[in-house]
Amino acid sequence: MRTQVAIIGAGPAGLLLGQLLHKAGIDNIILEQRSASYVLGRIRAGVLEQVTVDLLEQAGAAVRMRAEGLPHQGIELLFGGQRHRIDLHGLTGGKSVVVYGQTEVTRDLMEVRAAEGLTTIYEAAQVQPLDFDGPSPRVRYEKDGQVHEIACDFIAGCDGFHGVCRASVPAERIRTFEKVYPFGWLGLLADTPPVSDELIYANTERGFALCSQRSAQRSRYYLQVPLTEKAQDWSDEAFWQELRLRLDPEARERLVTGPSLEKSIAPLRSFVTEPMRFGRMFLAGDAAHIVPPTGAKGLNLAASDVGYLAHALAQHYGERSDAGLDGYSGRCLARIWKAERFSWWMTSLLHRFPEAGAFDARVQQAELDYIVRSQAASTALAENYVGLPLA
Amino acid sequence: MRTQVAIIGAGPAGLLLGQLLHKAGIDNIILEQRSASYVLGRIRAGVLEQVTVDLLEQAGAAVRMRAEGLPHQGIELLFGGQRHRIDLHGLTGGKSVVVYGQTEVTRDLMEVRAAEGLTTIYEAAQVQPLDFDGPSPRVRYEKDGQVHEIACDFIAGCDGFHGVCRASVPAERIRTFEKVYPFGWLGLLADTPPVSDELIYANTERGFALCSQRSAQRSRYYLQVPLTEKAQDWSDEAFWQELRLRLDPEARERLVTGPSLEKSIAPLRSFVTEPMRFGRMFLAGDAAHIVPPTGAKGLNLAASDVGYLAHALAQHYGERSDAGLDGYSGRCLARIWKAERFSWWMTSLLHRFPEAGAFDARVQQAELDYIVRSQAASTALAENYVGLPLA
Repeated sequence: MRTQVAIIGAGPAGLLLGQLLHKAGIDNIILEQRSASYVLGRIRAGVLEQVTVDLLEQAGAAVRMRAEGLPHQGIELLFGGQRHRIDLHGLTGGKSVVVYGQTEVTRDLMEVRAAEGLTTIYEAAQVQPLDFDGPSPRVRYEKDGQVHEIACDFIAGCDGFHGVCRASVPAERIRTFEKVYPFGWLGLLADTPPVSDELIYANTERGFALCSQRSAQRSRYYLQVPLTEKAQDWSDEAFWQELRLRLDPEARERLVTGPSLEKSIAPLRSFVTEPMRFGRMFLAGDAAHIVPPTGAKGLNLAASDVGYLAHALAQHYGERSDAGLDGYSGRCLARIWKAERFSWWMTSLLHRFPEAGAFDARVQQAELDYIVRSQAASTALAENYVGLPLA
Repeated sequence: MRTQVAIIGAGPAGLLLGQLLHKAGIDNIILEQRSASYVLGRIRAGVLEQVTVDLLEQAGAAVRMRAEGLPHQGIELLFGGQRHRIDLHGLTGGKSVVVYGQTEVTRDLMEVRAAEGLTTIYEAAQVQPLDFDGPSPRVRYEKDGQVHEIACDFIAGCDGFHGVCRASVPAERIRTFEKVYPFGWLGLLADTPPVSDELIYANTERGFALCSQRSAQRSRYYLQVPLTEKAQDWSDEAFWQELRLRLDPEARERLVTGPSLEKSIAPLRSFVTEPMRFGRMFLAGDAAHIVPPTGAKGLNLAASDVGYLAHALAQHYGERSDAGLDGYSGRCLARIWKAERFSWWMTSLLHRFPEAGAFDARVQQAELDYIVRSQAASTALAENYVGLPLA
């Protein structure tokens, strides 16, 4: 088998890249070690920046998102028992975000890919990128007990944090940056109407809480918990009880509880790989970087990475210029580090850190207080939340 | 002896308070354990916010500052080898700061106090605030081997971080918040023209540096150094040599060196006392809070404290209302915590922290890069630097 771009990983990054390349007339195959239903079963982010919305549009995968996605023009910060709205729309000259689950994005991309008759090989075992330093990269994998190889011009590593692509790069050619946070997020998904029209980010004595949503009927709530906690030790009732304690009276009253569809604990981590290009292999999305979910940047960064990459590959094939490919890593990383900074900052601002002293706690409250009173500080938060402009 | 307000400490906070009270027709005496020349010999801050300028005006001590102070409409951030100007004036709707040494402020206040014939008792030993919880506070001190007492209505503790006033409050009635930074500032004062018209705040691989000034002929430079360093181990030549390595080529070329008038190392500390009122004793300035010097907030916070206190005392005597006195602590602390936050943030942004990992270093660079590119983030820095409005 031969293709122009072999994409490893059929999550939203790989699928979006495949679609953008296809629209540019570039042949591609996606390899995925899991099944399609496994990929769809992963519950992830749900806040899309305008940049991501535009790329989904460009990929021809925006019809349902346009119909069902919920434009959000603000978020609420809850601290000291009071909610303060950050008017994203007003502060950024009309920008907003769209609440639409990552699972739905993935499903939409799968469907357009299937409709176009493009190849995605699911349950490909032992996937291995090969010879990406030379002119003729290959990807080897096993399927139904047989070894296969795909010859290609380029490999796109969209295979996530635990993927094989980054792991295939010799350690001396890669630099990694990491920060691990001393807590996790216990998330609960339920088919109940969200407690509020907008997301509520709560800084409380008992820890952080986030009231998020996937649709008008599906809520997603999170609680900051110590890393020692286990999801199975949390009954739904215990979750709702703790969430109530972290809300303001109005939200507490409006909260509709119900059986959980999913409940899990995710650790919080910041992680960046430099560079993101290794010969003819390009890393994109979680394969190259992780953000804590507080700033809702994970999926959006993956989208801007593959947006840059698709553009660079189109330049390579169309204009016979490698300027985009040569600039890919630097261009991505400039954006990524700003998003890493924002995600770290939002995390620091809103969580209780076990090691924080009394001084740090007061400074955190002073910062929250300053942000909601200062137009400049609110704007800085808002412009990052809706997404900085593409460079 | 009897007075309405006994002020302990004849630094700029105590002297400014005395002058503001006098203008409001309130009798006061200042007690200072050091000599006048010792107080004048302390080299401290040099950047005045508009709020401070206005209070000095109100105190009748602004003539020389108006003539000799240097209005600064911007500062420069130097990182990655490049300078980026923060246009304080343009970003804050016309606000600026005045560069004028704290020593000069103190001298001006001393002179107007002397001209008004008001009492300052220097070299008062064993100063002790007494009975401040009851209706009749007193201050006891020794002078020329004799014990004296001043009966008063109120005591103002303007006696600095190491002063007796805060130390006289029982531990269970006071809460302190503290952060100590793992480095100090080695400062050098020289009668040389400043390297630049505006202050340069430099974040470099070798650590922070600040090019400050006291006048067009007097420069003040600082270098971040480990706490283990000793000022006497730094020759002037070693200082200039290290400073050059932390500057950009243009500044390096323009730097004029010369013999040091003073050279010392100051540790960096954040410290806050809550509350700031204990019966009829009120703490103000460094007696209640310390900021690291990075944000140039120490003297300015002291000024706004005594501004609030003078106003509250005028209300007490003039309008027979204690609303101002009752609200003093809360009003001060709201402003102080915002300045503490800003000073901590500026310090974190610009220094190299020995414990910082590679991730933190990249985030710091991303933040600097973000600040100079974002109007909102630049404005947030600028509005804090020139001073948030008085509440």
